Amino acid sequence: MARIVILGAGVMGTAFSVPLADNGHTVHLVGTHLDGDIIEEIHDTRTHPRLHVRVPDRVQPFTYDRLGEAMVGAELVVMGVNSLGVDWAAERLGPVLPPGLPVLFLTKGLAGDQQQLQILPHVLRAGLPKHLRDTVQLAAVGGPSIAGELAARRHTCVVVSGADRARLDKLANLLRTDYYHVWTHTDLIGVEVCVALKNIYALAVGLVIGLREKEGTTANASAMHNTAAAIFAQGLYETAYLVEQMGGRPQSVFTLPGAGDLYVTCQGGRNSRMGRWLGLGLAYSVAKAQHMSEDTIEGAELALAIGSTVQTMVAAGRLDGARLPLLRTMIEIVCHDASVAMPWDAFFADA
Amino acid sequence: MARIVILGAGVMGTAFSVPLADNGHTVHLVGTHLDGDIIEEIHDTRTHPRLHVRVPDRVQPFTYDRLGEAMVGAELVVMGVNSLGVDWAAERLGPVLPPGLPVLFLTKGLAGDQQQLQILPHVLRAGLPKHLRDTVQLAAVGGPSIAGELAARRHTCVVVSGADRARLDKLANLLRTDYYHVWTHTDLIGVEVCVALKNIYALAVGLVIGLREKEGTTANASAMHNTAAAIFAQGLYETAYLVEQMGGRPQSVFTLPGAGDLYVTCQGGRNSRMGRWLGLGLAYSVAKAQHMSEDTIEGAELALAIGSTVQTMVAAGRLDGARLPLLRTMIEIVCHDASVAMPWDAFFADA
Repeated sequence: MARIVILGAGVMGTAFSVPLADNGHTVHLVGTHLDGDIIEEIHDTRTHPRLHVRVPDRVQPFTYDRLGEAMVGAELVVMGVNSLGVDWAAERLGPVLPPGLPVLFLTKGLAGDQQQLQILPHVLRAGLPKHLRDTVQLAAVGGPSIAGELAARRHTCVVVSGADRARLDKLANLLRTDYYHVWTHTDLIGVEVCVALKNIYALAVGLVIGLREKEGTTANASAMHNTAAAIFAQGLYETAYLVEQMGGRPQSVFTLPGAGDLYVTCQGGRNSRMGRWLGLGLAYSVAKAQHMSEDTIEGAELALAIGSTVQTMVAAGRLDGARLPLLRTMIEIVCHDASVAMPWDAFFADA
Repeated sequence: MARIVILGAGVMGTAFSVPLADNGHTVHLVGTHLDGDIIEEIHDTRTHPRLHVRVPDRVQPFTYDRLGEAMVGAELVVMGVNSLGVDWAAERLGPVLPPGLPVLFLTKGLAGDQQQLQILPHVLRAGLPKHLRDTVQLAAVGGPSIAGELAARRHTCVVVSGADRARLDKLANLLRTDYYHVWTHTDLIGVEVCVALKNIYALAVGLVIGLREKEGTTANASAMHNTAAAIFAQGLYETAYLVEQMGGRPQSVFTLPGAGDLYVTCQGGRNSRMGRWLGLGLAYSVAKAQHMSEDTIEGAELALAIGSTVQTMVAAGRLDGARLPLLRTMIEIVCHDASVAMPWDAFFADA
């Protein structure tokens, strides 16, 4: 049995403690500076306020100022912060992370520095002290995992991805239960690109909910699943292009990290809810301020994080804009309050 | 403007007449021997009994005994029969099909002859008189197209696939409207394998509806989208394997014919409804007889059509059974009334 630290007590970080606890590990769940209330509530009631499940007894809650204490004897650190918290996490982990320890990312996203796109494990590495950068073992979980379902022990299938197959197999063995099915592979970049982009393409699929409401009903009361499915397919096609451009493997696109995670993210949630407002005709800034001011909309966060970098790379010819019409449309919608208009004729270029 | 014959007046054949009529073509909609009532109703009321839309005035209904008359001057035949009707169609078309005429398949399925799997356009070709076999121009539509939505002119994106790009472009130009978006490519086999298999994998995804009802609710009222999404991803992964084995191209898998069509087919319909009964624990034969005796369940039809051929090919080493655990599970469920048990550990072999 291992001692495992989860940094970030949001729904995913906390849900991840359930299979770990079921495997007999001791879990130290360390809230970020934003998770104070959650840690207090778990401490007092053993319940996560948004996950609505009892947190297993083997899970000990910690506030972030006690991270050093929580890290003593840890064999694995799990990154459960949100996509904006990676720099913060690097700062906090720098002084307390032993060389060579694996860091497993649940956090999803991409970063852009106006020159290029980066996966978040590489952002973390860049933020660590020099002596840790070469030794830290970066890995990531990818696949369709709604936190509440994992916490309820519904069958969930994921991959754990990283550089070294033997280490990954060891890691996967820490995680596997009879409901949490884990495969390993070495396409870290492919996995990270897929699971980040799924948020922005799920936001795009969600537009159709609003478009249908706006267009109104038809004589035969038809839905608009054809439209949503076409956007889904274009999203996956663009994901394949970006995975290839960033050095990942196509197989990740049509297995759990790509198709599986995009599918699950289209089943509802905040991206879909924001998509509806946009499809109804609200500008992103208005919809955010008026209807979802308290919510993190991950697809929109991604557009804001990489929008200008993607535009720069396209302008410089380092990305082929003709292969990314949906991503560029979503960036215009989120970053520049553009109205929703699907560039159908630009879809599936070179397919 | 062209004269176009659609053979088969089911929902898809009839819905396809809408963009054709909008483009100003004259459409002869020829019912099969099973479509007598439909043709009569369209003749009398201009309404399709299951599609619930007004059939455009440019569409003339014909009974199958008048196929020869309907074919006069036709530039294109559209195959809208169901998957069991291809041999019948070949017999009927043989005497009246001019050499070199394009035949465009809406019909989805695969055939098995215990030795190998065949796409339906090739089954049609084999059933035509010898002098037509070398000249008939086979093509197929693939992509997420729920008939009622196409008939209601909702945005729908498809590919038209066949051997000759120039002919395909001409064909696509007959079909394209501002709501029916058509791309061309030459991977006929890939498209046909994807759009056939989507039915059986949508049936598999549908199992989760019943499994969830059977397992009951959880403390946090969680859905089972993770489980459904994992099955979705495994289905797409197996599709990629079979596309490759049959000589198609991987790109079809993660664009409209594969991911797009599987996505739309999982949004409900008869495969999902049967999936629910199976997930609840009913044997296929019982569920079919007691609850859906009047319905064609396309995923089950496919399992019945190719089940024993797949098993033979796996036994003979001509297909790798380890790469098809979900397909084989569904064949057992449909062909042999096996109970539902997902072989999780067998998923994603070699991924």
